[in-house]
Amino acid sequence: MTPPRLSVDGDRLWGRLMALAGIGALPAGGVDRQALTAGEIEAWRLVIGWGRAIGMTPATDAAGNLFLTLPGTDPAALPLLAGSHLDTQPTGGKFDGAFGVLAALEAAETLHRAGLRLARDLIVVAWMNEEGSRFAPGMMGSAAFAGLRSLGQTRTVADAAGITVGAALDTLHAAFPDIARKPFGFPFAAFVEPHIEQARELQDTGTVIGIVTGIQGKTTFRVRIDGAEGHAGTVPPAARRDALASFARIAARLHDSVGTIDDAVRFTIGRIVAEPNAPSVIPARVVFSVDLRHPGNAVRDAAGLAIEAACRELAPPCTVTVERLVDAPSNDFDPGIGASIAASAQARGLPALPLLSAAGHDARHLAAVGPTAMIFIPCRDGVSHAEHEWAEPSHVTAGADVLLDTLLALGMTP
Amino acid sequence: MTPPRLSVDGDRLWGRLMALAGIGALPAGGVDRQALTAGEIEAWRLVIGWGRAIGMTPATDAAGNLFLTLPGTDPAALPLLAGSHLDTQPTGGKFDGAFGVLAALEAAETLHRAGLRLARDLIVVAWMNEEGSRFAPGMMGSAAFAGLRSLGQTRTVADAAGITVGAALDTLHAAFPDIARKPFGFPFAAFVEPHIEQARELQDTGTVIGIVTGIQGKTTFRVRIDGAEGHAGTVPPAARRDALASFARIAARLHDSVGTIDDAVRFTIGRIVAEPNAPSVIPARVVFSVDLRHPGNAVRDAAGLAIEAACRELAPPCTVTVERLVDAPSNDFDPGIGASIAASAQARGLPALPLLSAAGHDARHLAAVGPTAMIFIPCRDGVSHAEHEWAEPSHVTAGADVLLDTLLALGMTP
Repeated sequence: MTPPRLSVDGDRLWGRLMALAGIGALPAGGVDRQALTAGEIEAWRLVIGWGRAIGMTPATDAAGNLFLTLPGTDPAALPLLAGSHLDTQPTGGKFDGAFGVLAALEAAETLHRAGLRLARDLIVVAWMNEEGSRFAPGMMGSAAFAGLRSLGQTRTVADAAGITVGAALDTLHAAFPDIARKPFGFPFAAFVEPHIEQARELQDTGTVIGIVTGIQGKTTFRVRIDGAEGHAGTVPPAARRDALASFARIAARLHDSVGTIDDAVRFTIGRIVAEPNAPSVIPARVVFSVDLRHPGNAVRDAAGLAIEAACRELAPPCTVTVERLVDAPSNDFDPGIGASIAASAQARGLPALPLLSAAGHDARHLAAVGPTAMIFIPCRDGVSHAEHEWAEPSHVTAGADVLLDTLLALGMTP
Repeated sequence: MTPPRLSVDGDRLWGRLMALAGIGALPAGGVDRQALTAGEIEAWRLVIGWGRAIGMTPATDAAGNLFLTLPGTDPAALPLLAGSHLDTQPTGGKFDGAFGVLAALEAAETLHRAGLRLARDLIVVAWMNEEGSRFAPGMMGSAAFAGLRSLGQTRTVADAAGITVGAALDTLHAAFPDIARKPFGFPFAAFVEPHIEQARELQDTGTVIGIVTGIQGKTTFRVRIDGAEGHAGTVPPAARRDALASFARIAARLHDSVGTIDDAVRFTIGRIVAEPNAPSVIPARVVFSVDLRHPGNAVRDAAGLAIEAACRELAPPCTVTVERLVDAPSNDFDPGIGASIAASAQARGLPALPLLSAAGHDARHLAAVGPTAMIFIPCRDGVSHAEHEWAEPSHVTAGADVLLDTLLALGMTP
C-alpha cells in the first residue's frame, strides 16, 4: 500500500467527542442520551451543523436513521456508508456510538479540507436506537433499513412511560421538517463501523486496531412472572404466589448453569422491575431481561432452550411468559474490507489484531444486505455502558485514520 | 357468662368519631392530626370536654399522655386502663387510634348513664405519638410510661422543622395548665386497647371481633449489594461482579430456607431496585428490603441472623451492607383478658377469632408492665394509614360493646 496521503485532525475529533458528550452529560462523566429523546434531537442538530458546514446534505428515513452525504464525483457509483449511533445507555459513556459517527464525519471533513473527492458518495450514518435501553430491542433503525424487522412492528414498541417508538419518531421528524427522506435498503458499496471494543483484548495485547471479523451470536428474552399481591405480615408461606421469589429461583439457577457454561458465554440479567415494589407487600409481578451471547451458535441455541425451560420449571406457583426478542447467530464480516483495514494499520505502524465482537452492533444488520466491517479501538479496561468508559485520544485518532484510509481504498474508484 | 347488662350508644360513639375526624380533616376524607400539633391539642380539648361532662378527671404526665379518670368505688383497687391514641399519620384515616380512645370513653359514659360504678377506677388513655410520623420512632408516650425509653432521650428528638419533642411537650402542657400530672408506670389491673385490624383477616373470614393474642415480632432489613457495571456482551464470567446475580443467590437461598421455616413465618422481599437497570448492562448495584415476621422470638432471632449470614456468604464477589431497620420481638397478651373478650363476643353473638396483630401498637409497651390485651374490629379491605380507611358503624359499636363487657368483667370486683 502507498503511504497515507492524509491524516485526520485528532484535536478536532476529540473536541467534537467532548462537545457531543455535553448533551445528556451525567455528574460522574457519563452520558444519558437515550434513543429519540430531546437529547438525541439536540445531538442531531449539532452533528448536522458540522456536516452542513462542509457541504454535506442531511437526510433521514422512516425509521429515524440520520444520513449526511458528502457527494462523490460519480453519481452512478454506489455510496460508502460509515458511522454508528448517537444514542447511549441511561448511564453510558462518551465513546460508545459517538466515536463511530464522529470518526466518519472527521474522515469526511479531512477529505473536504484536502480538496479530495471520492468517486463514491460518502454517507455518514447514525442508526436509530442501537442501545435498546429505552425501547427494546436495540438496533431498531438498522433492522428497519436492512428489512429485518417491519417498521410497523417497531413503531408499536413503547417505553416505560408508555410512549411508542412511532410517537417518538414523529416527534423527531417534526423537529427536522426540512430534510429529505431516503428509502430503506438503498444499495451501498460498503458499510464501515468504527467502535470502541467494549472488551479488553486489545488493551491486554497492546493492540490499537481491532480488525473485526464478525459478531458473536446473541439471544435476548423478556420474561414476565405473574403472582399475587398480599400483605407481608399476614399471608402464610403456602398461600403465597411471590413473583420475586420465583424470579430469584430462576435467576439463581440460570446464573449458576448457563452463566458458567464456559469462558466464552455472556449471560446477563440486566433489568428487573417488580410491582408494586413496596417493602411490606408481596410482589405481584416481576419483568426481567435476559441477554445471552456466545460465539458458538450451537451452544447459544442450547442455552436459549435451557433458559426457557428453567423459567417454566421454576416459576410455579406463579405463571410465566417468556418472549424471545432477539435471536441472532454469529456472523462473518467482509474479508475484503478487513484486508483494507489491516493494510492501513500496517502502513501506519499501528498494532492490529483480527477479533470477534462480543457485543452486538448495527453492522450485524448491515452485513445481511451489503459488504460490511468494523474497526475497533481499545477502551480502558474494557469498560463500556458505564460512566467511566474511556478511550485514549491517540487511539481515537488512530481509529479515524484507519477509517479514512479504508474509505479512500474503497471509494477512490467506483 | 350472664347476658350483657348494658350496651353502648353506637350513634353517640359514631357521632364523636366523625366530630374528632373534623380536627385535621383532609379533602379526601382522611385526617392529618400528627402528634403534639395544634390539632392534637384541639382534640384533647374536645375529648376532655366529653369526659368532664360525665365527671371524669383529666390528667397528663411528663410524656404528654392523656388520662381521663372515672372513679370506682374502691380507692385501693388498681385502675383499669383503656384507650389508644389521638394522633394520626399525615394522610391517616378517621379510625386508627381515635376508635380506641372514643370506644373507651363510650364505655365510661355508658356506665355513668346507667348509674353503674365499677370497683376500680376506669382511666381512658390517649398515648402520645403512636404513629411516629412527625417524631420517630412511634409509641413514644407508652414507651416512657412503661420505662422502656427515658424521657430525656425522647425530648431531644426533632421533627422535620427542627422542633423537638421537648419543646412540643412544653407547648402541650402550657395549653392545659390546670390538669394534674400522673407519674410514669403507675400500677394497673389491666390495659385494653380497641383498634381497627389494619389487615383483612377479620373481613375475609366474616368475623367482627378479633381477640388479639399478641403482636407478631418483626425484623426488617435494607440490604445493598455493590458490584461493577459492565457490558453484557464482553465481560467474561470470571471477571463479573454482577449485583443482581448476587441478589438472586441470596434471595433464592432465603426464600428456600427462612421463607419455609414453618407455617407461621412471614418472609418477604417486597422491594428491589437495580442500577442502572438496562438489559445489556451488568447490574452494578441492587438495594432490596427484607420483612421478616414470626410469633416466636427465638425463631425470628435465628432467622434474622441467618439472613445476615446468607447476605455475607453469598454476596461475593460483590460487597454487601446489611442494615437492620426494625427489630421488635413478639409478645403475648394476657390470656385472662382474652377470655373475657371471647366470652363477651360469644354472649353477644358476634363472630370472633383469636389472631396476632401484624402491626405494632402501644399495647406492646403496656404488656411489659401489666396485664394487657387488644380488641380488633375489621376495617374495609384491611386498608389503614390511608384517607379511605373505613370501619362499619355496626363494627364500631360491636367493638365498644365488647370493651364495655370486658371492663365490667375485670372491674366490678377488685
